[in-house]
Amino acid sequence: VASLFRRSRIHRDSARSRARSTRPADQVVRIALGELTPDPRTFLGHAAYVQLAIFETVAHAVATAPHPRAKAALSPVATLSLAKYDGLVNELRRAGHDPVDAMAGFTADTDAFRHDVAGADWYESLVTSYVIAGLLDDFFLRLADGLPDGLAERVRALLEAGSGGDVVVAQLLGGIQSDPRLGSRLALWGRRLVGDTLLVARSALEVPADTRPDEARLEPVFTELIAAHTRRMDAIGLTA
Amino acid sequence: VASLFRRSRIHRDSARSRARSTRPADQVVRIALGELTPDPRTFLGHAAYVQLAIFETVAHAVATAPHPRAKAALSPVATLSLAKYDGLVNELRRAGHDPVDAMAGFTADTDAFRHDVAGADWYESLVTSYVIAGLLDDFFLRLADGLPDGLAERVRALLEAGSGGDVVVAQLLGGIQSDPRLGSRLALWGRRLVGDTLLVARSALEVPADTRPDEARLEPVFTELIAAHTRRMDAIGLTA
Repeated sequence: VASLFRRSRIHRDSARSRARSTRPADQVVRIALGELTPDPRTFLGHAAYVQLAIFETVAHAVATAPHPRAKAALSPVATLSLAKYDGLVNELRRAGHDPVDAMAGFTADTDAFRHDVAGADWYESLVTSYVIAGLLDDFFLRLADGLPDGLAERVRALLEAGSGGDVVVAQLLGGIQSDPRLGSRLALWGRRLVGDTLLVARSALEVPADTRPDEARLEPVFTELIAAHTRRMDAIGLTA
Repeated sequence: VASLFRRSRIHRDSARSRARSTRPADQVVRIALGELTPDPRTFLGHAAYVQLAIFETVAHAVATAPHPRAKAALSPVATLSLAKYDGLVNELRRAGHDPVDAMAGFTADTDAFRHDVAGADWYESLVTSYVIAGLLDDFFLRLADGLPDGLAERVRALLEAGSGGDVVVAQLLGGIQSDPRLGSRLALWGRRLVGDTLLVARSALEVPADTRPDEARLEPVFTELIAAHTRRMDAIGLTA
């Protein structure tokens, strides 16, 4: 059944590719990723647990904020990620799946990831929130294109709702402007995060057991994800 | 201006007391507390920062949950406290106040409180979430009766929205039933929390500089808060 399902989805995506062939280049890239979207339960379980990890990272930054103004500024960022998580879990329930069972396959890797990217102080944990929310929301948003119609739109609406990056940028700029050495340290930290975060993204792609994804075809997707990441690092004056 | 304001509010509350004299006993108690409600900005600033502390405690319990099912069960509890915080902050903005300035007078004491009640492990932090959210939501709900009409109703609606106690109870019962020694330790921890939490409540009452609140009149309020707390501890099979 799984392979039939996969084949039928790829077939549908190919039909879409043709229909959209006159669209700009980024749409073509999106379709390439949509072909590797796993079944809805797997997608939602993974995206939900990753979102919970983003929430935990932000909540930690709220709790360890050095002053109440930063704490109050960041708390809406926690609300945003928690709302995304809630929305993804509701989609699991709506489809009749137990959310925790659906997340079970991703908890160990995601927990290990969150531990690895926790950061040594408040500023590093802010950069982590910013970088991983930016990259992973962007990634799952693109991957959502391969979900069945209806679900795809709802998940995109959830993930497009923003991740409070502007708020985090304001906090980071304040710190970096008053201490240039902090900027160098955070640029280094940002670079370290990208590799780990892209591995999380990579692990969410459905790669049929008997094949390997066409790495050449994946490359433009990851190039685009990294380009968006570079723009986010530019926004805080750091080299990606 | 402050003393005029205070006098006019007390006058209004006395009028209410008479109007409500035929209501059940708990209403009378509520009015007694409403007479000590500070001005709206002070009330909202204090209640909001306390709610943020509750959120941080719950978020920590989410992050340190021993298994994904507990983590997923607790995350809606974090949503509830964050929504209350957001609502209180929105009321500050609506009245034209800077939320952070309004919270400023309460951050040091509340941060110290949160540190003191953090708990040694996940179960203790769960009990903390349960006990402090129960007592302080209950307390600020009663204190909201002294707010101006309109605001009082909106704040009550926010605080009455529930604090996810049933979810926390389920997690605690699971742990306690499989390890009776855990129950004794948590009962002890719960008793330690009550004193610190009631001091937070006590500090939110407006006591005019030249007078002392009538402690005999306050007593039934705190007796009632503790009775509700005792029922919450009963729900997890622990003696308060």
